[in-house]
Amino acid sequence: MKIYLAGPDVFLPKPLEMAGRKKALCAQFGLTGSFPLDNGIDPKAKGASLEIFSSNETLMNEADGIIANLTPFRGPSADAGTVYELGYMAATGKLCLGYSNDPALYAERVARFTTVKPCDGRLIDAEGLTVEDFRLPDNLMIVHALDLYGCPLVIARTAPADIWHDLAAFEQCVKLAAARLAS
Amino acid sequence: MKIYLAGPDVFLPKPLEMAGRKKALCAQFGLTGSFPLDNGIDPKAKGASLEIFSSNETLMNEADGIIANLTPFRGPSADAGTVYELGYMAATGKLCLGYSNDPALYAERVARFTTVKPCDGRLIDAEGLTVEDFRLPDNLMIVHALDLYGCPLVIARTAPADIWHDLAAFEQCVKLAAARLAS
Repeated sequence: MKIYLAGPDVFLPKPLEMAGRKKALCAQFGLTGSFPLDNGIDPKAKGASLEIFSSNETLMNEADGIIANLTPFRGPSADAGTVYELGYMAATGKLCLGYSNDPALYAERVARFTTVKPCDGRLIDAEGLTVEDFRLPDNLMIVHALDLYGCPLVIARTAPADIWHDLAAFEQCVKLAAARLAS
Repeated sequence: MKIYLAGPDVFLPKPLEMAGRKKALCAQFGLTGSFPLDNGIDPKAKGASLEIFSSNETLMNEADGIIANLTPFRGPSADAGTVYELGYMAATGKLCLGYSNDPALYAERVARFTTVKPCDGRLIDAEGLTVEDFRLPDNLMIVHALDLYGCPLVIARTAPADIWHDLAAFEQCVKLAAARLAS
């Protein structure tokens, strides 16, 4: 059973080291992890971004499921590329799992970046835009996709010291995926 | 032909007004726009977030294409819910269009929120995480999904005075969608 390992892990200083750790955890539970950088495309080569897109899509099409690192990335929500891939996998009926190393609720996170205040029965930010307030950890499309097409978002109880390298929540996803794919 | 009107427009102070304007532009070009709030779900009702998810999914399944407002939202990338929906529509073979009212490149936008500097042949942010630098306006998965499954991202040449209410780039998407769906 193949699992696509989506996440902003590709942006880490040593992404291949993280790929190795994640794949080893998958193997421990009988799964084969595939990582977006598996293709070895040179990001400096001409047309690299389109090649990476196509390669990631092929890896997703070949996978039975996704484990998405949905730890918020450069803002209150998960990484955009990862969220795109979650939507893609949900639509194709694949098993969808995800984790976040930040236990805060979405509205709490938004408040780290902008002023959040109540207005006419809703929460708004400094631009007057509504802040989604369903007491969910991220946008409802992300959270409920996991609820319906896999397992509820696995959230670290407390933020680990190193949110980009701690794999406890990831490991829980691997266990859940292995159990679901075996049944 | 039905077009799903995805975007953070649902978070505007008057989202139904925006829904009306977008639907009127669609109708002008022979398309039927569907808006995430069309279902009239009370966001205060118990279980509302899951109902909204299911309703949005139904609207997407019924649509022939998507026009996504990919103007960056609360960070350097597009709104997470919208990006999820773009991935969903791309996977189901629907026509994918999107627009952004911010003409900056992704790496330029990241620099609005954090220090961006070169390091070992790549760009990194203050956390040491790589900043995608393909001279694209957002994450490559978003940009190339549009290239391959619809039309290249429509980008305002200069940011309009009101990035949340200006519909010039949206209108261009409607024209492109109408032409593609007619052929």
